[in-house]
Amino acid sequence: MVNRQWRLAARPVGPVKESDFEWREEPAPEPGENQLLVRNIYLSLDPAMRGWMRETPSYLPPVRLGEVMRGTTLGVVEQSRNPNFAAGDLVRGVLGWQECAVSDGAGLSRESRHPAIPLTAYMAVFGHIGLTAYVGMLDIGQPQAGETLVVTAAAGAVGSLAGQIGKIHGCRVVGIAGSDEKCRWLTGDLGFDAAINYRTENVLESLRRHCPNGIDLDFENVGGEILDAILALINRRARIVLCGLISQYNATAPVPGPYNFTNVLVRRARIEGFIVVDHWGRAPAAMADLGRWLAEGRLKYRVDVVEGLENAPRALTRLFDGSNQGKLVVKIGEE
Amino acid sequence: MVNRQWRLAARPVGPVKESDFEWREEPAPEPGENQLLVRNIYLSLDPAMRGWMRETPSYLPPVRLGEVMRGTTLGVVEQSRNPNFAAGDLVRGVLGWQECAVSDGAGLSRESRHPAIPLTAYMAVFGHIGLTAYVGMLDIGQPQAGETLVVTAAAGAVGSLAGQIGKIHGCRVVGIAGSDEKCRWLTGDLGFDAAINYRTENVLESLRRHCPNGIDLDFENVGGEILDAILALINRRARIVLCGLISQYNATAPVPGPYNFTNVLVRRARIEGFIVVDHWGRAPAAMADLGRWLAEGRLKYRVDVVEGLENAPRALTRLFDGSNQGKLVVKIGEE
Repeated sequence: MVNRQWRLAARPVGPVKESDFEWREEPAPEPGENQLLVRNIYLSLDPAMRGWMRETPSYLPPVRLGEVMRGTTLGVVEQSRNPNFAAGDLVRGVLGWQECAVSDGAGLSRESRHPAIPLTAYMAVFGHIGLTAYVGMLDIGQPQAGETLVVTAAAGAVGSLAGQIGKIHGCRVVGIAGSDEKCRWLTGDLGFDAAINYRTENVLESLRRHCPNGIDLDFENVGGEILDAILALINRRARIVLCGLISQYNATAPVPGPYNFTNVLVRRARIEGFIVVDHWGRAPAAMADLGRWLAEGRLKYRVDVVEGLENAPRALTRLFDGSNQGKLVVKIGEE
Repeated sequence: MVNRQWRLAARPVGPVKESDFEWREEPAPEPGENQLLVRNIYLSLDPAMRGWMRETPSYLPPVRLGEVMRGTTLGVVEQSRNPNFAAGDLVRGVLGWQECAVSDGAGLSRESRHPAIPLTAYMAVFGHIGLTAYVGMLDIGQPQAGETLVVTAAAGAVGSLAGQIGKIHGCRVVGIAGSDEKCRWLTGDLGFDAAINYRTENVLESLRRHCPNGIDLDFENVGGEILDAILALINRRARIVLCGLISQYNATAPVPGPYNFTNVLVRRARIEGFIVVDHWGRAPAAMADLGRWLAEGRLKYRVDVVEGLENAPRALTRLFDGSNQGKLVVKIGEE
């Protein structure tokens, strides 16, 4: 059996290119004592990957040149010599851009598979995506009913969940996204109160119109000019939940912080960064709530499935041009 | 009796100039029913005044053109028709840049005068200065023993207290100030562990040397390049207590936020702005603690007294060139 992989070949300068990766075909590894072999089915593509490709450490060490590219996958245990896992188990872990991987079980979680839940939902709602939205919105953002919430990259995997969680908690929710189609999805299907297409609208003007009582809470995935427009309109004691800064991940020169930074002082606001890896302890509560909201029809999602591991590098660039429609995953193997 | 005053004559562009104020001599006002007349002794000069002179509202409405310039004063009740105050009471309030003022008592606090405490301490330690340092450091900053605290504008009125409160709570404290004399005062008299002269040193390099374990807490009064150097070195879960941004108060063009803003995300930091006016409820606890620390010799301060109300506008500019030595006050009348 062959294990096809993408390894990091070069540190990208600016946008990621396919040549930053190297395609490799290796013999599939054999599990040693206490190890197991996982066959990956889905690979999650996440904006944070751009940070892992840099030479400077982010919240995880950089992926080394020549190393299999890091990524979260959902897979099935093919063979187990580890007492905690059995062949056939559905597992999630950071097993990389490859068809199969050997693991000692550390950092691997066994997922209970429900027949009614498609496997893609384990990527789009459960796991790190759902936990990010849940912890960011509830623990960091602390939404109060009646508050105005703005979500940036609102049609993205995390943003779309964060906005819906805000709605469930009684907020007026305004999303910012990059196409009219995405905006229609937010307001038509997800119940957002308003949506702004940042490519065609003046974001500050539109925010002013859609947030007549100002902004109390911002679930921030973008940064740059969009964050500045939001900071212009924040209310006293506003919270900016800093989940991502995708507008600057490809930057090749230092990027200035928000020009309206003074408003953080004047309006007594709080900007707080968080990374999901610190919050695994909240996963049981998060998964229970997310599952219930999903079953009740209060939480919707969409998945953008790219077929074939060979297309992963090109697919990754779609997160940065905004052409993905919902949670972006690569289908590596058969369900 | 004549009431001499400074009124706001023009909105400053860039640094404040004397011509932005107008000197006026008016008949002293008479207290009406339920009112009292206060004779001001000391006027506090604070960086926040620059914001009040702008046309755009900050956390208080702008001072109107032609209005007596806003400022906190310490004074004595000369005459009272208000049952809550009597002639001879020592009072603090926002009574403006003038020799006397009529008040209905709203926002005026009666201070119990201790013979051992010089009146200047009511400006430099008690009141809004001490409460700002206390609330910012303890409630917002939440210092833990063993953490590394950096204080900017550390020889200033608020910064010098904030740093000492950090020492009292077991932090390693590094101050940043604008002269060798100030740095010697911080380390020699106030017990700071280290001090950096930002005019002669490379702040980032010096911080690296003095904060070998990184920075956990920043009491920020300055912003700009100094904040950027701090953000470069923050630890996971660092707190940036945003108390002031004096480096940009005189700016005439938009000022970019910190270039190392990404570190707020990557290091899961929290930036929180606060304004003392929201925290008067903490004053009793703050004044009790500050008074005890002062009596125990654990808290020191110095006051830079400018004689004569006529010198107030020129004195205000000293806050921005850093030539003041400690809490800057104007002596308006005899004690």
